[in-house]
Amino acid sequence: MISFENDYSAGAHPRILDKLKETNMEPLPGYETDHYCESAAEKIRKSCSCPEADVYFLAGGTQTNAVVISALLRSYEGVLAAETGHVNTHEAGAIEYTGHKVLTLPEHQGKLDAGELRAYMEKFYGDANHEHEVFPGMVYLSWPTEYGTLYSRKELDGIAAVCGEYNLPLYIDGARLGYGLMSGETDVTLSDLARICDVFYIGGTKVGALCGEAVVFPKGNAPKYFMTIVKQHGAMLAKGRLLGVQFDTLFTDDLYFHISRNAIEAAHRLRKILHEKKLPFYLESPTNQQFVVLKDEIYQKLQERVALSYWDKTDEAHTVVRFATSWSTTESDLKELEKILTEISETR
Amino acid sequence: MISFENDYSAGAHPRILDKLKETNMEPLPGYETDHYCESAAEKIRKSCSCPEADVYFLAGGTQTNAVVISALLRSYEGVLAAETGHVNTHEAGAIEYTGHKVLTLPEHQGKLDAGELRAYMEKFYGDANHEHEVFPGMVYLSWPTEYGTLYSRKELDGIAAVCGEYNLPLYIDGARLGYGLMSGETDVTLSDLARICDVFYIGGTKVGALCGEAVVFPKGNAPKYFMTIVKQHGAMLAKGRLLGVQFDTLFTDDLYFHISRNAIEAAHRLRKILHEKKLPFYLESPTNQQFVVLKDEIYQKLQERVALSYWDKTDEAHTVVRFATSWSTTESDLKELEKILTEISETR
Amino acid sequence: MISFENDYSAGAHPRILDKLKETNMEPLPGYETDHYCESAAEKIRKSCSCPEADVYFLAGGTQTNAVVISALLRSYEGVLAAETGHVNTHEAGAIEYTGHKVLTLPEHQGKLDAGELRAYMEKFYGDANHEHEVFPGMVYLSWPTEYGTLYSRKELDGIAAVCGEYNLPLYIDGARLGYGLMSGETDVTLSDLARICDVFYIGGTKVGALCGEAVVFPKGNAPKYFMTIVKQHGAMLAKGRLLGVQFDTLFTDDLYFHISRNAIEAAHRLRKILHEKKLPFYLESPTNQQFVVLKDEIYQKLQERVALSYWDKTDEAHTVVRFATSWSTTESDLKELEKILTEISETR
Amino acid sequence: MISFENDYSAGAHPRILDKLKETNMEPLPGYETDHYCESAAEKIRKSCSCPEADVYFLAGGTQTNAVVISALLRSYEGVLAAETGHVNTHEAGAIEYTGHKVLTLPEHQGKLDAGELRAYMEKFYGDANHEHEVFPGMVYLSWPTEYGTLYSRKELDGIAAVCGEYNLPLYIDGARLGYGLMSGETDVTLSDLARICDVFYIGGTKVGALCGEAVVFPKGNAPKYFMTIVKQHGAMLAKGRLLGVQFDTLFTDDLYFHISRNAIEAAHRLRKILHEKKLPFYLESPTNQQFVVLKDEIYQKLQERVALSYWDKTDEAHTVVRFATSWSTTESDLKELEKILTEISETR
Repeated sequence: MISFENDYSAGAHPRILDKLKETNMEPLPGYETDHYCESAAEKIRKSCSCPEADVYFLAGGTQTNAVVISALLRSYEGVLAAETGHVNTHEAGAIEYTGHKVLTLPEHQGKLDAGELRAYMEKFYGDANHEHEVFPGMVYLSWPTEYGTLYSRKELDGIAAVCGEYNLPLYIDGARLGYGLMSGETDVTLSDLARICDVFYIGGTKVGALCGEAVVFPKGNAPKYFMTIVKQHGAMLAKGRLLGVQFDTLFTDDLYFHISRNAIEAAHRLRKILHEKKLPFYLESPTNQQFVVLKDEIYQKLQERVALSYWDKTDEAHTVVRFATSWSTTESDLKELEKILTEISETR
Repeated sequence: MISFENDYSAGAHPRILDKLKETNMEPLPGYETDHYCESAAEKIRKSCSCPEADVYFLAGGTQTNAVVISALLRSYEGVLAAETGHVNTHEAGAIEYTGHKVLTLPEHQGKLDAGELRAYMEKFYGDANHEHEVFPGMVYLSWPTEYGTLYSRKELDGIAAVCGEYNLPLYIDGARLGYGLMSGETDVTLSDLARICDVFYIGGTKVGALCGEAVVFPKGNAPKYFMTIVKQHGAMLAKGRLLGVQFDTLFTDDLYFHISRNAIEAAHRLRKILHEKKLPFYLESPTNQQFVVLKDEIYQKLQERVALSYWDKTDEAHTVVRFATSWSTTESDLKELEKILTEISETR
Repeated sequence: MISFENDYSAGAHPRILDKLKETNMEPLPGYETDHYCESAAEKIRKSCSCPEADVYFLAGGTQTNAVVISALLRSYEGVLAAETGHVNTHEAGAIEYTGHKVLTLPEHQGKLDAGELRAYMEKFYGDANHEHEVFPGMVYLSWPTEYGTLYSRKELDGIAAVCGEYNLPLYIDGARLGYGLMSGETDVTLSDLARICDVFYIGGTKVGALCGEAVVFPKGNAPKYFMTIVKQHGAMLAKGRLLGVQFDTLFTDDLYFHISRNAIEAAHRLRKILHEKKLPFYLESPTNQQFVVLKDEIYQKLQERVALSYWDKTDEAHTVVRFATSWSTTESDLKELEKILTEISETR
Repeated sequence: MISFENDYSAGAHPRILDKLKETNMEPLPGYETDHYCESAAEKIRKSCSCPEADVYFLAGGTQTNAVVISALLRSYEGVLAAETGHVNTHEAGAIEYTGHKVLTLPEHQGKLDAGELRAYMEKFYGDANHEHEVFPGMVYLSWPTEYGTLYSRKELDGIAAVCGEYNLPLYIDGARLGYGLMSGETDVTLSDLARICDVFYIGGTKVGALCGEAVVFPKGNAPKYFMTIVKQHGAMLAKGRLLGVQFDTLFTDDLYFHISRNAIEAAHRLRKILHEKKLPFYLESPTNQQFVVLKDEIYQKLQERVALSYWDKTDEAHTVVRFATSWSTTESDLKELEKILTEISETR
């Protein structure tokens, strides 16, 4: 069965597996002190135009969010996020487990608004009783968002400006970073992100790795003893090589960007197909996730032949579903989808 | 340079990499719901003679300890462990980070003593003020221990009996489980372990996997919503296949046991070499870790040609070092070590 | 200066101080094991018609909420509360500090709606991915609410019914319980509350005590070793007598109810005065808190002569303020307020 | 029955109750912003010769320890304490509940040794793997200790010197501070303590208050937003006046010191009586706690007429018990004890 279920249903890009095999018997020190980790970090520094950056590798996104956020906040602070932010919805309370509140702001197709952020901060410090409340201690946003949407450079700069005024570190969750960077509809580069925020991560799990996210503190501004914090969270792999080799491969010859582009090109084709089939969009994104509203009978038939994601119900008879392309989506997957949609529409 | 530094300096057993490659492009559902995870779990159930067991896969040992221990304890309880227990010493406070105290008992070559455990429990409940103290809520032991030593079946039964009396779940950390099971000097089988304890884990990271530990609740006694707890700890991999495929491979054709035996055979040869070279043992273990005391000048020379682990200082001029064999140690590594030791002893 | 700032600006009811003095030199065992605590508990059991109730005394409201909520929830669960619930807004993240998310529902003058609660639960369990989300594990509501409003018996029964269906403990924050019970506009009795919920607390701090809240588990259903949990939170007073004597006094000769009635009668007079002065109500409550909207110039003048509480801004030129009466409000306070309001309105 | 059970079995010094009564109806702002708190803080600053000190009031000792320690430590740090330190033994895991390990050092009659502390720190930083361990982040000691013993000024200076070298804040638990300061056998003054450490608390609960401890950051070095941290721990009383009035009274006309002296004089008499009765001391302290070893039959008889504390068993037939004097011990209590001991010894 073809799959548009998500961007992590296949394994890893074949070059990663080849490299793991090639380096397999080389004895290496543990805990990310090996030379593949160092090489990967150096390549990432170059890609970000941040020669001073501190780079660390963690295994997964929720883990990364919990480690970074708890490392940056003081005990009485919480993290500001959009209501739909991954940290607020789909991480089983991982942030609260570290003792911190997720403070929510309205979302606009998954995005925060700089004006609303400023208003929140003004209201907070304007309240005579604010010392009885959770202090907003940092801002979390995802780029692309959980809806596949993208902040423009101007929007990011606007948020960063408010963060600067209030001394709030800005953290960007880049679980699908590659798909944002390769979107034809963005004016944001990796260097822009590194310049704008205080810490971000480059997603591997959803962009061709077996697992792994690269955390970047662009100004060499990692919290002291960050690796001990990682260890304390149970987030440190003994065989750091698994992460080092993967990111070293992804950042060799721009592989990360090439495979991300594949997802974007596939998403363009997908959008075209969905439009041609006249499936109404719930949200049409500039990246690899597309949301359409299906009649439940169509949804049911489709599910038998295509793996896709349930998103929400709009009413008794309709369901929002997500189609995701990825680095591994093929032309043949798309053709097959087109054929299936045609067949289903004919039998309606 | 040859390495006896630890048992995680090489990558993975080649069959694992082959299987990862072979299954790579198969689209699979995430979060350990794929059929490789199920197949691996089923093979583990068979190996343990526990058809009812709940089996989960986590990425690393510290993570597994923190998740399992915090899932089993009530807030006012702590975990009993030997002073040298990994949870007490080398996990950067991961257990305390979850809010629980590690309550320590004396260690005997890394092992707990059932009598001392009972005495602890009697004293605790005998103290009129015990409701102001941390309640002992479970027992943690490692098998093999951090020193490579092994509890006999009788010793484990003795500890389990005290646990039974006081209703303390018994948890066995099996980071190096294979090396214990394949030791010629044990009377404990995998089925014994599954019968004796309430939960244990089968270490993958140190026994041939890239990463991964299999947590087994032998009586189908996993805490409710255990996967949500795993997620909350940031310990759930999106691509559960990475763990499923690895453990499925390790438990196919007894690979886990065969490669563990290799480490034990290599350890035998190693012990023989160390004895022949008259290096005094600090602790000679029945598994893959051997501890010897070196004059510091020897240590220095050796370090230049062999990777090994610093353990402790015994006095100003001597150092305890650890030699570890593993599934990947070769006859040629051992010969090279022998040669190096001979050369160094001749130049003394 | 007269004060309508809150209901904890005076000390304690004089009978409490007398009793503290009278019992002062009696040597008593610590940690709430003294006979005053037992006597107070017994009187509370009688008042609640709950002979089996477990009763504990804690020092303050935020503390009580954090202890009770964390004691009832499993690690992967959060507490459902109205957006305006005290636990969500004014406790500096005390709940999150214990590792749990506050899951919010819409508020209607500070109240939850049973239908919205059911809808939330249905949506949660209807979501295929709910195991990646925080499980709703209990319901928190305050009676009276933070706005002084009261759930009717029918409303409470409705919420309790949903709780029953989903096995959610229902917890009632009674920081101002007396003021609710003595309101002429309620059909809820203390016995009703004890019947309807799983745990509640009877507020002392805001109803005549120096400090102290009595936690009641009406069905003898306190979590095991609750006092150890209290101790672990740093919430156990060595001199439990301080709480025991106070609650013993408050529940002797219905003092708690008599002094609560005083606040309600004073609130009636207050409402009348505010109406006469034509100050527009933001929210007119059936208990001791009244919210009016003031032009900022009036607010400024008033502040110089009457202590009251800032609540919110409605626009550039208007402020919501709270007037609170209490057990200690006197007729002379009210007359003085009336006079001041008259004078201010004349100078407008 | 007379009581030597502890130093918190009576209520409060009568002057405290008088002052509470006198100030009772004065309307005051909440949360320690009232003028009694400020006056008390100012008097404490004077007593400590620390005009810059930050002073806060909390309700109890375990609470104070948990709040101060968690406020000072980074997430990856633990607190160093003697094995017998209150934070390690009798606080139900309150420190671990905040996520931090208590790192233990040997105790010598309850005291830490500066040399052992330095050795610990050297070993820690000398260990190549220390980034996998809990970082020692501060030092906790109690003065007097849990055994009533006292560090000399030289001993404290020695510990503070090591703390200074390693940048470890030094925290002194002064639950029984007055009894130490008034001991004839100390060369340490309140100003010395304030000079030597980074933070300490002046115990009220055990020295004449109903509840309350005054936390002093002598160099004005309180962590930012300390009151929010206090609130987050549920440790802030709405009626801060309860603590302010008590400490204001205790530090007016040296009441705190006068009543502490009473306990010390009573302890002298007690020691004399115990010596005369030839009861063997387990530990004879220079403060208000005395430990003797009793034959169990004597212990049993004594218990019927005198309240005292069980401490430990030395063997099958003997028990260590603690006699504590306090600010409230009277000459008549001592005479009665003498009489009882005489009668019991005669009937042997």
